[in-house]
Amino acid sequence: MTIPQPIDWTANGGVRILDQTLLPGEERYLDLDTVDAVAEAIRTLRVRGAPLIGIAAAMGVTLAARGRAPSLDEVCAASKTLGATRPTAVNLHWALDRMERRAGRAATAGENLAQALRDEATAIWEEDRAMCARIGAAGAELVGDDALVLTHCNAGALATGGIGTALAPIYTLHQAGKRVAVLADETRPLLQGSRLTAWELSRAGVPVTVITDNMAASRLRRGDVKCVLVGADRIAANGDVANKIGTYGVALAARAAGVPFYVAAPSSTIDPATPTGAAIPIEERSAGEVSGWRGHQAAPSGVAVWNPAFDVTPAELVTAIITDRGVVAPADVARGL
Amino acid sequence: MTIPQPIDWTANGGVRILDQTLLPGEERYLDLDTVDAVAEAIRTLRVRGAPLIGIAAAMGVTLAARGRAPSLDEVCAASKTLGATRPTAVNLHWALDRMERRAGRAATAGENLAQALRDEATAIWEEDRAMCARIGAAGAELVGDDALVLTHCNAGALATGGIGTALAPIYTLHQAGKRVAVLADETRPLLQGSRLTAWELSRAGVPVTVITDNMAASRLRRGDVKCVLVGADRIAANGDVANKIGTYGVALAARAAGVPFYVAAPSSTIDPATPTGAAIPIEERSAGEVSGWRGHQAAPSGVAVWNPAFDVTPAELVTAIITDRGVVAPADVARGL
Repeated sequence: MTIPQPIDWTANGGVRILDQTLLPGEERYLDLDTVDAVAEAIRTLRVRGAPLIGIAAAMGVTLAARGRAPSLDEVCAASKTLGATRPTAVNLHWALDRMERRAGRAATAGENLAQALRDEATAIWEEDRAMCARIGAAGAELVGDDALVLTHCNAGALATGGIGTALAPIYTLHQAGKRVAVLADETRPLLQGSRLTAWELSRAGVPVTVITDNMAASRLRRGDVKCVLVGADRIAANGDVANKIGTYGVALAARAAGVPFYVAAPSSTIDPATPTGAAIPIEERSAGEVSGWRGHQAAPSGVAVWNPAFDVTPAELVTAIITDRGVVAPADVARGL
Repeated sequence: MTIPQPIDWTANGGVRILDQTLLPGEERYLDLDTVDAVAEAIRTLRVRGAPLIGIAAAMGVTLAARGRAPSLDEVCAASKTLGATRPTAVNLHWALDRMERRAGRAATAGENLAQALRDEATAIWEEDRAMCARIGAAGAELVGDDALVLTHCNAGALATGGIGTALAPIYTLHQAGKRVAVLADETRPLLQGSRLTAWELSRAGVPVTVITDNMAASRLRRGDVKCVLVGADRIAANGDVANKIGTYGVALAARAAGVPFYVAAPSSTIDPATPTGAAIPIEERSAGEVSGWRGHQAAPSGVAVWNPAFDVTPAELVTAIITDRGVVAPADVARGL
């Protein structure tokens, strides 16, 4: 089994990324040797997924001065350039803050700055990989053998530095020789399910079947789906889950069918400062994502579109939340953070 | 207000159709003067929607002999050609049977066969138009003023010889000066909602907003949708409703939000011979409809796809059924047929 790896170091210290905008048609890797090239890759979604963006940005900072140790000013300028690519991405700013602080400590201590930055970026990546593995182990035990799992969007290897979050239990089961197969919602409007989830699972040899989002309810009713497994963008203190638009509808259908609905996410996704899902702001995106596709018109010119990127699934529809710290009931999610 | 009319006679007795495959980008009408041309238009979905296909086929039969009265054999040959275009379309065969029977009666009675065929095709069309108007009147009363209505797929003027079925109450309210607006699910995989429903409502001046199918649940939860209004392909004796894939998920979301879920359909859609929805066969269509779009790859090559065209909404999720005979509870739908 080969789980695709969307990021790596190149032999000469550059950053190699898989260009996700070309998937599923083409698997092309780009070697990036400058801060600007990494910033462009993040801005244009060649690299996407909250954890992966953080890792890419951290690795991007190490390119601040080609072939020599950068100055602290150069590190801060690189961080600013990278931070401006996706202003609302929490992980991105968290990773860049970490890189700046490490640079400051290294300068004070008289360490090799280039090496310190490389060490810190590698640590951010390794921590993410370990987080994915822990979610995978906890989730695999919950899901068990002989499982047809329905997922929505892409919370897989392509979104992280490891084996993903929602897909981590799938890969863990597959690697252990268990029978596991996936139904992937295509996830309109941007089709992360059919373009990315189906691609990475196929590459890894996990059986996957693509459906349109509106087929999930009748498939769940059919009785052959063992559980639903999705990621999360933010989890409120009461266990309400914000995730890619369409997740709430899947949760309703799972409940109606008596199918367990699991959310897999790093514990950093849990936000004790957000009391309930009602307090989570929902980004509304451009009409063009819905009204057209790769230059083809799917709706009349100028028609109104409502295009929220996320929805909120109330805690009462969530069977359990799988984090790197274990499996918890949604009501208990904020305890022990 | 101008409700688009997808079919008409031409001045010289031909059949004029709106080429629905070009919508929403282009509004082009084709004048068809031969049986084969009408058959081609039905086969290639330039004309679609169960009632409209029946009307188009009936009008197509009148073209059996150009400029002179056809023989009975020519009528039967035309009917056979037209009937072969969409083998499973019930309305198509019903309309063609009617045309053949009328031809037989006309021949026996020594009537003008060409005129008899034209009269019968016109009657089929007029009956459909009247059916739509009755659904519109009954539904308008039920829906009432100041309504944001969510619909799925296209059960509108473009699918019938009149003002549609699910959209008939909308047009009736709009024509009466009531405030009515529509949320149109795009309806993957074939996008009849964004391509057709949004187009015909826009043309008629009815405010319409397009959403992807997976946005319906969170929009219903928001509380500003007055009711859901969808069509039906077949209604079982117990009130279970088969309709375009995704209808069941919308019904679950409407129930969770406390929003009424109405089905509008001709009484001919009710099938007393089908006891429950479990007895309704569900057509599965080709993978390519889901995995690609207008030549663009949306999923990895060769990936498995599940593509059912319809789903079944259980009667207990249906608030009421609106037919040309009035409004009935789903449990009572088979009475009085």
